[in-house]
Amino acid sequence: MADDDGHPDIDEFDLSAVLHALADDNRRSVIAQLAAEPQGSEQFCSVFGLPWAPSTRTHHFRVLRTAGLIWQRDVGNGRMTRLRRDDIDRVFPGLLDSVLAADAATRARVA
Amino acid sequence: MADDDGHPDIDEFDLSAVLHALADDNRRSVIAQLAAEPQGSEQFCSVFGLPWAPSTRTHHFRVLRTAGLIWQRDVGNGRMTRLRRDDIDRVFPGLLDSVLAADAATRARVA
Repeated sequence: MADDDGHPDIDEFDLSAVLHALADDNRRSVIAQLAAEPQGSEQFCSVFGLPWAPSTRTHHFRVLRTAGLIWQRDVGNGRMTRLRRDDIDRVFPGLLDSVLAADAATRARVA
Repeated sequence: MADDDGHPDIDEFDLSAVLHALADDNRRSVIAQLAAEPQGSEQFCSVFGLPWAPSTRTHHFRVLRTAGLIWQRDVGNGRMTRLRRDDIDRVFPGLLDSVLAADAATRARVA
C-alpha cells in the first residue's frame, strides 16, 4: 500500500501513471537529471533548474512520486529526491532506458 | 508539416505527445492490438472493442493520430487505422517495444 507520502509499493505500479508522469517535458527532465547521477544519489528539489512556481513544483513532484518514479524525504527545510530506478526497471524492464534515450535524442535534436 | 488529418511528419514527432497518447489504458490497447497484427495491417476503428462513445472515440483516435502513432484514412462510412511502427521505431528506437512489453505484463498480472 502507498505510504503517507504517496510512494506506491512496486506491486501497485501503474503503467498509465508512469507514462503520464513521463509525458511532461519538465518532469522528464527531473528523471533524466536523476538518472545521470550515480545510482542512489539524492538531490534537493531546488537543483533541477525548473520553471515551476512552488505550488506547481509540489504538484509535479507528487505526480512523479505517486507514479513510483522517485522517493522523497524531508530534510530540514527541503526535500531530497531519489530515482527509484531498481523498482521501475523490475516492474517495467527497459521502459525507463528507452524513454531516457528518446528524451536525450530529442534534446540533442532541438539544441 | 502535419497533413489535414493531423498526421505529423516524422521530424515533428514529439516524445511528450507520444507518451501522453500511450498513457491511457484504452488508447494503449488500440496500439497493442494493431501491433499484434502483421505489419502494415489496417483495421476499422470499430473492431477494437472499446467502451468509447462516438465523440470520445473521435477524440482518442485524434490523440493517437496527432502523436504519430497511427495512420488513418476514410474508407466508405468508416476509417481504417494502421500502426506507424517503422516511423515510431525510427524516431524513438525501442520505445514502443518496451511500452508494449510493459502493457502485456500489466494485463497478464491483472488477468
